[in-house]
Amino acid sequence: MYPHDGFRELGRQEALRLMATVPVGRIVYTRRAMPAVLPVNFTLDRDGAVLLRTAAGSALAHAVDRAVVAFETDDVDAARQAGWSVVVTGAAAVVTDPAERERLSRTGPVSWAPARREVFIRIEPGLVTGRELVGGRTLYGVDLATVDD
Amino acid sequence: MYPHDGFRELGRQEALRLMATVPVGRIVYTRRAMPAVLPVNFTLDRDGAVLLRTAAGSALAHAVDRAVVAFETDDVDAARQAGWSVVVTGAAAVVTDPAERERLSRTGPVSWAPARREVFIRIEPGLVTGRELVGGRTLYGVDLATVDD
Repeated sequence: MYPHDGFRELGRQEALRLMATVPVGRIVYTRRAMPAVLPVNFTLDRDGAVLLRTAAGSALAHAVDRAVVAFETDDVDAARQAGWSVVVTGAAAVVTDPAERERLSRTGPVSWAPARREVFIRIEPGLVTGRELVGGRTLYGVDLATVDD
Repeated sequence: MYPHDGFRELGRQEALRLMATVPVGRIVYTRRAMPAVLPVNFTLDRDGAVLLRTAAGSALAHAVDRAVVAFETDDVDAARQAGWSVVVTGAAAVVTDPAERERLSRTGPVSWAPARREVFIRIEPGLVTGRELVGGRTLYGVDLATVDD
């Protein structure tokens, strides 16, 4: 990262707190050997794991089960040129443990239009990186494009 | 994609028009064999290529030069549960042609705090996929998590 680049590193807990304030993030994975990214609604588990709810057999479930994925959230106010971004990187897996599925069906993300069969996907919070963008026109643009750690 | 899943596929031109309305997107690439994602400000070139401006020698420039990347933009109103997302997937490269660099320095994205040496990164619009989310609480959540094409 460049010095004086207008970003403040966020601690893990602070990053997760910010992440919990937005309803939708973007899951980043590999599909057919190509980079893929999909906006999804999510919740955070008690340990900071990212929880998604999707249809059993969906292409997303197949693509990310037992793969390392990144999950990105951000909230950038272009007018104020301020905001934050948080990325959780870790192993994703379809939740198969019956007790865990039962718990998540009570506490996990809600599907507003449930599919016939649904599964939960859990992304372990192996690495949580976050930055707050310190507002200011003179820093915003280049930082977003050059932060390099 | 599931039938009646609340999404409307966007044509390429419509997708690019929507993309051009937001200042920041997310570049998706591979770094140290891990999925990586970074919010960046951007502009679109005449042909729909995504243009980024970053510091020469930045980790981003190294990571994406001559790699296939995805560039995601979205605008989702969680309150209305409506919005859109567009992903451009294609080969990224640092622009080296002097005439092209000169053109982009006039017409490309602006760094509000220029680094000492800057480069432009161009992402070819090989594949442009976009969806408009048709609002409605009963469709929003699961669709974002289950769209599978």
